Amino acid sequence: MVKLAVDAMGGDNAPQSIIEGVELARNENSKIEFLLFGDKKQIQPLLKDNKNITIVHTDEVITMDDEPVRAVKKKKNSSLVLAAKAVKDGEADAFVSAGSTGAVMVAGLLIIGRIKSIDRPGLTVTMPVINNDTGFTMIDFGANADAKVNNICQYALLGKFYSKNVRKVDNPKIGLINNGTEDDKGNIIHQKMHQALQSMSDNGDINFIGNIEPRGLLNGITDVAVTDGFTGNAVLKSTEGSALAVIDMLKDGIKNGGIKSKMGAFFLKDTLKKIAQKMDYTKYGGAVLLGLKAPVVKGHGNSNPEMIKNCLFHANEIVTSGYVEEVENFFNNTEKND
Amino acid sequence: MVKLAVDAMGGDNAPQSIIEGVELARNENSKIEFLLFGDKKQIQPLLKDNKNITIVHTDEVITMDDEPVRAVKKKKNSSLVLAAKAVKDGEADAFVSAGSTGAVMVAGLLIIGRIKSIDRPGLTVTMPVINNDTGFTMIDFGANADAKVNNICQYALLGKFYSKNVRKVDNPKIGLINNGTEDDKGNIIHQKMHQALQSMSDNGDINFIGNIEPRGLLNGITDVAVTDGFTGNAVLKSTEGSALAVIDMLKDGIKNGGIKSKMGAFFLKDTLKKIAQKMDYTKYGGAVLLGLKAPVVKGHGNSNPEMIKNCLFHANEIVTSGYVEEVENFFNNTEKND
Repeated sequence: MVKLAVDAMGGDNAPQSIIEGVELARNENSKIEFLLFGDKKQIQPLLKDNKNITIVHTDEVITMDDEPVRAVKKKKNSSLVLAAKAVKDGEADAFVSAGSTGAVMVAGLLIIGRIKSIDRPGLTVTMPVINNDTGFTMIDFGANADAKVNNICQYALLGKFYSKNVRKVDNPKIGLINNGTEDDKGNIIHQKMHQALQSMSDNGDINFIGNIEPRGLLNGITDVAVTDGFTGNAVLKSTEGSALAVIDMLKDGIKNGGIKSKMGAFFLKDTLKKIAQKMDYTKYGGAVLLGLKAPVVKGHGNSNPEMIKNCLFHANEIVTSGYVEEVENFFNNTEKND
Repeated sequence: MVKLAVDAMGGDNAPQSIIEGVELARNENSKIEFLLFGDKKQIQPLLKDNKNITIVHTDEVITMDDEPVRAVKKKKNSSLVLAAKAVKDGEADAFVSAGSTGAVMVAGLLIIGRIKSIDRPGLTVTMPVINNDTGFTMIDFGANADAKVNNICQYALLGKFYSKNVRKVDNPKIGLINNGTEDDKGNIIHQKMHQALQSMSDNGDINFIGNIEPRGLLNGITDVAVTDGFTGNAVLKSTEGSALAVIDMLKDGIKNGGIKSKMGAFFLKDTLKKIAQKMDYTKYGGAVLLGLKAPVVKGHGNSNPEMIKNCLFHANEIVTSGYVEEVENFFNNTEKND
């Protein structure tokens, strides 16, 4: 049985959405045990069935207003900290929360801890690609806004093993997000990152396809896009914002376009639904903080039960895929050979 | 009469599209004179009417394969270099090219030259906003990938005067693209940029609205988005790529969706056309390199005649708006007060 430690109090719709999501996951997969951290008085009445679910009571909660580092250090009995601690103590295999991103990252880093040889974990998200169902994985999109060259090299490895083990992509293509595809493109640090990734590729450690431009990401130019957290954040938010803007314009156009456009929308309903499903990257189950000793999955603050379920299955998939073990083995072997 | 120096040989469809674009512009606006630099044997036969058009013959051309700095220095008789030189020598008021972006930037910088007090020019583009027709202006999206704090402060001023004079936005809002809206967000350099912009705002020099996230750009959160050239490039290409991906999916869905979806598309035609028009930022007339002594407008390499016309009108608008003079006055007054 895989055991997941769940912060039942994190997120805008907690604990209701979290509980419902846990029950959805439990009903679909009987091989997962759930440890729910939070207020038992609120949680128990919401639960339809306690099968495979254990509530670990605590009153303390980390809110969005809390400063992350301070909150994780001071609120030792918060649902978020206790859930992370359960993973550290071996009582659970992975940690899932829809709470404050900052606090989840800090708890992951300080409580669960880094894999040996990884200097900084990277926030990782899988986004849709028009012409396949695997999507592409971007690392980092915000954990490390001042990334150095060695961070990027480690992200490439983390992204490679994640894509291979969790997304089931054989020999995944790794691209560096840059301001042009030519080898010498980029500012000073991105030029150095390119050279370092090329060396790793020459050594056979990764399948580096060179610099990539964000324009082609949704068209599937790469399986893994590595980037510093500042640029990755800008790419993620631009991509989201732009897709939503086009969809909003379509909706507005239909709403204000009279009977003809409403008929059009009616006939196009299936097509529009397919697009919405394709673009819905919540199916990939939230973001994951890679580089830690156990999977840490962060759900969107606004997650509904279906999204929480996807986060839980995502965490379960990372555990069962053997991803962490493979990363650890890689670095152990590298050290031996050095 | 405004005089525009046009590189007739730059771009994928040159000289045909350039000539047709010039004639479109001439036919709509009789107050512009055009100096066309390029091969007279190719240009003259394409011209329907020489009114307000002068051809300055040259055989030499800078291609996309040329290394920009070297090409501008060596190919002294190229259409691109001669057109820029005409502006420097006072024979024309602005320089327009759809040729190599790198070469246009180098020619602008080395031949036309920077406004005193501006350290680095910034590539500037205006993009659509869902709920207004003014769009928003982003500076820089690629001239200066290693921007320093003082570059960003100058971009804010250049963007302010451009937005005010050319886009006719009263007291334009200036936002700094960052990885969160809180004042302390960002990596080290973006934190410093925020502080510097805030000081300028406190002095009354700009209307700084603080940090902005790319997610809201197309929703009109700001009039001017300032950013380093590396991040700006990523934002521009992500925004374009994502919008195109959604539109492509819609087209594919309609094409492969059977008779029902084709009927839907038929009824929705007007709505889809409006969206395409809204998202078409070529109407804003190409990119402009701000911070130079005269307007330098760069059209897309793939420009059709309509897009070239928009670039020419854009250059004309910058000249007649008095934008360069206002920037120069601002810095002269600042120096006097220092």
